[in-house]
Amino acid sequence: MILLLGGRGFVGTAFAHSLAKRSLAFEVVSRRQCDYTRLDHLIALIDQTNPSFLINAAGYTGQPNVEACEDHKAECLMGNAVLPGVIRQACELRGLPWGHVSSGCIYSGAGNRGHAGAALGHRETDPPNFCFRSPPCSFYSGSKALGEECLQGAESVFVWRLRIPFSCRDGSRNYLSKLMHYERLLDVTNSLAELDEFVDACLYCWQHRVPFGTYNVVNSGAITTREVVGLIINCLKTDREFKYFRDEAEFMQATARVPRSSCVLDNSKLLRTGFPMSNVHDAIRRSLLNWQ
Amino acid sequence: MILLLGGRGFVGTAFAHSLAKRSLAFEVVSRRQCDYTRLDHLIALIDQTNPSFLINAAGYTGQPNVEACEDHKAECLMGNAVLPGVIRQACELRGLPWGHVSSGCIYSGAGNRGHAGAALGHRETDPPNFCFRSPPCSFYSGSKALGEECLQGAESVFVWRLRIPFSCRDGSRNYLSKLMHYERLLDVTNSLAELDEFVDACLYCWQHRVPFGTYNVVNSGAITTREVVGLIINCLKTDREFKYFRDEAEFMQATARVPRSSCVLDNSKLLRTGFPMSNVHDAIRRSLLNWQ
Repeated sequence: MILLLGGRGFVGTAFAHSLAKRSLAFEVVSRRQCDYTRLDHLIALIDQTNPSFLINAAGYTGQPNVEACEDHKAECLMGNAVLPGVIRQACELRGLPWGHVSSGCIYSGAGNRGHAGAALGHRETDPPNFCFRSPPCSFYSGSKALGEECLQGAESVFVWRLRIPFSCRDGSRNYLSKLMHYERLLDVTNSLAELDEFVDACLYCWQHRVPFGTYNVVNSGAITTREVVGLIINCLKTDREFKYFRDEAEFMQATARVPRSSCVLDNSKLLRTGFPMSNVHDAIRRSLLNWQ
Repeated sequence: MILLLGGRGFVGTAFAHSLAKRSLAFEVVSRRQCDYTRLDHLIALIDQTNPSFLINAAGYTGQPNVEACEDHKAECLMGNAVLPGVIRQACELRGLPWGHVSSGCIYSGAGNRGHAGAALGHRETDPPNFCFRSPPCSFYSGSKALGEECLQGAESVFVWRLRIPFSCRDGSRNYLSKLMHYERLLDVTNSLAELDEFVDACLYCWQHRVPFGTYNVVNSGAITTREVVGLIINCLKTDREFKYFRDEAEFMQATARVPRSSCVLDNSKLLRTGFPMSNVHDAIRRSLLNWQ
């Protein structure tokens, strides 16, 4: 049996669907049911349910967007930094392997460069460069990086780094939906992750006994905002007019109090496990052609 | 009635003594009695006890010393960053004024300079320069600075910055006792705080309706380790031989995995409230002459 923390959130729901589809026994735990931020409660839950694996899809992302984290710092630190540390303690005490949904937003920029300056992206071993220790950053990114620090040296844990999730299901947390609703867009280059592929890759790690550790779980390659918009126009035949900020400075001035991370992540460690993560252009096109 | 959180710790015990001496009604709350890290529990406690003021002397300092924070990151963040934010929420919801014991360890160095380069120390308005956002730092310092961030914009709160407490009572948390037991010392310049004076200054803030805000609550002036040792030798007539590290590099190499903060704090904002904080040399001599 798999314990799923945060199973009613955006990412957690996708885990729940995928686990059900695979007929894997799992239990969604809500904080109302068991306050798993408290070590003693979480240990009692583990002892009662005797799981073989635990997935932490809980975290604080801010409503309506990441900027809300700046006004809810304590909740943000609790959900993103302290909670992973508490889960680690409980899982280590009970010898329970587990997986943690982290974020690629602790990086900024193209990362390592290959031939002719091609962006290869940040590797798992690169130290975060968009976090409290490497300012500037958003409070959200800072808290997620501290969450990874709380897991340093942990042995039986997967740290799955998600980045800008999208899917074929229209919704407020879906990146494709966001692009269709924002008034103006900032043209940046990013790695992205199709949510169902992300979840499949995570479950693959556990089911195929991939070595524990940190994995950048994103689609292959990188894509610019304009390229995504091109795919939206092409596939959804929308006549919406997309407007852009001139540059990041104008974007920051017009809308954002806090810097946003744009970054490319290198997913080759994940690919070497044998999981066939698709190309980001293909994955977006597929989502748009199945749009619902 | 005053609610005292963390009243059984090193700093909290001094608060309890001083409140009792003044015949002020107070209640020491232990986490076993009420898990005040949980917002709903803390609100219930406030509603039950109807206090006029709350003091947070709780925090995570690490045992046997600050380095333990590097191995207990989640507890450290919980106690030093999340907890102040939770208390803020509860106090704002109930309109309860309160005071938080913060730390001067979020600074490094002499701070502002006066005539002829004299160290005037860091002022309350200077941004922390020994924290996650301004590396290097210890995890403890980083967590304390995040705790202050969680209080940004709060209205009815005193943030009392304590720094290297000492007193006339021999004990493992007393700086003077530490100097007498360390095998080798590092000669650095610091602001310090006599613990009873610190507590008296904090209670003065509340009792004399000093404006809310952040205060460096340290003795006036700064002192080097060698000067403190000179006072120890003079006052306690010890024949112990005190050995020193050559420099900070040797200190770091020999003993410490994590950088320690040495800093001077400017206490003139506190002095302007009318509280007569004594000079650090005088305060140390007094503690040593009353040594018990």
